[in-house]
Amino acid sequence: MAVNEVNVHMNAGNGDTSYSNNSAHQKIGILKSWDVLDETLKDMFTANGFPKCFKMADLGCSSGPNSFFVISHIINKVQELSEENNFGQSPEFEVFLNDLPRNDFNNLFKMLPTFYHKLNPTTQCFVSGLPGSFYGRLFPSKSLDFVYSSFSLQWLSQVPEGLESNNRKNIHMAMASPPEVFEAYLRQYQRNFSIFLSSRGEEMVPGGRMVLTFVGRSVADPSSKDDSAHFTLLADTLVDMINEGLIKEADLHSFNMPIYTASKQEVEAAILSEGSFTLDKLEDFLVPWDAHVEHSDSNNHRPDKYRRGELVSTFIRAYTEPILATHFGTSVMDDLYERYAKKLADYLSMETPTYFILVVSLSKK
Amino acid sequence: MAVNEVNVHMNAGNGDTSYSNNSAHQKIGILKSWDVLDETLKDMFTANGFPKCFKMADLGCSSGPNSFFVISHIINKVQELSEENNFGQSPEFEVFLNDLPRNDFNNLFKMLPTFYHKLNPTTQCFVSGLPGSFYGRLFPSKSLDFVYSSFSLQWLSQVPEGLESNNRKNIHMAMASPPEVFEAYLRQYQRNFSIFLSSRGEEMVPGGRMVLTFVGRSVADPSSKDDSAHFTLLADTLVDMINEGLIKEADLHSFNMPIYTASKQEVEAAILSEGSFTLDKLEDFLVPWDAHVEHSDSNNHRPDKYRRGELVSTFIRAYTEPILATHFGTSVMDDLYERYAKKLADYLSMETPTYFILVVSLSKK
Repeated sequence: MAVNEVNVHMNAGNGDTSYSNNSAHQKIGILKSWDVLDETLKDMFTANGFPKCFKMADLGCSSGPNSFFVISHIINKVQELSEENNFGQSPEFEVFLNDLPRNDFNNLFKMLPTFYHKLNPTTQCFVSGLPGSFYGRLFPSKSLDFVYSSFSLQWLSQVPEGLESNNRKNIHMAMASPPEVFEAYLRQYQRNFSIFLSSRGEEMVPGGRMVLTFVGRSVADPSSKDDSAHFTLLADTLVDMINEGLIKEADLHSFNMPIYTASKQEVEAAILSEGSFTLDKLEDFLVPWDAHVEHSDSNNHRPDKYRRGELVSTFIRAYTEPILATHFGTSVMDDLYERYAKKLADYLSMETPTYFILVVSLSKK
Repeated sequence: MAVNEVNVHMNAGNGDTSYSNNSAHQKIGILKSWDVLDETLKDMFTANGFPKCFKMADLGCSSGPNSFFVISHIINKVQELSEENNFGQSPEFEVFLNDLPRNDFNNLFKMLPTFYHKLNPTTQCFVSGLPGSFYGRLFPSKSLDFVYSSFSLQWLSQVPEGLESNNRKNIHMAMASPPEVFEAYLRQYQRNFSIFLSSRGEEMVPGGRMVLTFVGRSVADPSSKDDSAHFTLLADTLVDMINEGLIKEADLHSFNMPIYTASKQEVEAAILSEGSFTLDKLEDFLVPWDAHVEHSDSNNHRPDKYRRGELVSTFIRAYTEPILATHFGTSVMDDLYERYAKKLADYLSMETPTYFILVVSLSKK
């Protein structure tokens, strides 16, 4: 791992603030990308038939139930297509769940017996956990038939170099960031996404397919719209805590999120320039910040803004806490996310903010 | 998992009683099986050449450093053979580390960056963790080139049925066990080993090789010699604790180790009867109970019997504690293994007991 590389991981285990129990929001995004996924599988089948063993990967699977939700869907879909086309026996499935080495694989593996139990009993499916960065090689040459990834590719392999002195009270590519910050983030994104594509290019069989869902940016010019206001509010919360002497100012100046939300144009240009894949589809959809909130209350009342603030704070905590805790210390985390919840509540009472999500379908040339 | 199946795992993490820090004994056994391993790889190479990607598995890898020690050795050996034979480029390596789902894979994966770092930088090696019982299918059909396993195959998938009322104060196939106990253990072993072989038979390519090292029995008749006196002493320790009211007698009567130490004749007969593999080699060697003790002290003095008793107790604790703690409760474990250490100390001052280890080399027909 290079010097500046970050070891991003979601909150481990299965407690109240764990990613495992706070990934309902991502599940909504996953469901909205089902159509592209299903069409890709159908097209793949029509074009290539199926191998005896369908080797697939979920890249950036994290440690929650969503990964098994997706894998089950893909397996069912492939079996359905195989039946419709009188392919005979369903293929065997070799499935790789990938994330960085510090991901909580133990928690993921605990769900495996239940996953196997729910499969059609004749299904031959073999699931492994594969620790490693997808910004590099993970699989043998020409071995993968299908690659899936959701809500992972917005993470960069490292914070872009040279941001410390430039981005001061911002923690991401904010509207208020100077031009050098936008440039540094874009360069890091281009480097990362290009390595992602070339690595998969070497690993996939010709005609292999890839469906990638990730957080994108709705505007070409990042200084024209606050598309990641949830990070602006998080930075504001950190500033409040500096003003009360709870966090050091220097710590905020040296902190930036290793996250890049690419525009459609940037994604398209990177795929064209790298050259291993044909871009079959590039679609977008919106998911409200509090999309998962209605699902979290059993009664029919829409929760008030404070409860919604809390639920959005907890969902964002599950994916940001490990990296913030490493930098600012674990002792301030409860306080930080409680304050953040209030800021989110106020914001949610005035705006109806959304994540801008991209879903891409690619074929290996 | 069937009703009676046990979920055997070694002590997790990397603390004082962890398997990770108490597997030096197994490493000595692994080193003693190197010759058979090396000859098997050499013979495999001469007979089949090499695939572009060498797909191999370590079955029952547990969560310590031994697995990486073995994998590194195999990779180096294959690369050496590939150079000697002017094979051109070294094959890629796809490696699966397998154990039951409750194995501490997180601890294993923490060692992965160091493992990759030590490899020759041109080596393409991709390591996954594969949770599941090797008494059943783990891999797609005809996909594996090489299977390795050490110190795992003596574990059964479950305690043989019907032992509860028969084996009373024994916890394994002891000399004092009645004939029904020997029969029940043998039946369970035959069922398990046959499924192990037929599963690997489906998964391996023709000509694929397997090297298996496990604890065996030096005598054909299990009632003729106390070949597992370490378990007899453990049972004696439990009896002492019953006499002091610390453990319930009924708990001991209902406890038996899901371990079978097969004789050479039994191993040979099972392989012949199952039929998927040719038996190329079946060798044995001895490892003293306290073989790892000399390695644990930096000075040149041989530790006294009490220290040796403690070190043997800790090594056995690392692989027996999870299953004993589940049955007798975690609260009595420290006391149990301290008392056991004293019994071991006395025994070691009178005898020079050894484990009888078998190493088997097989070819897929």
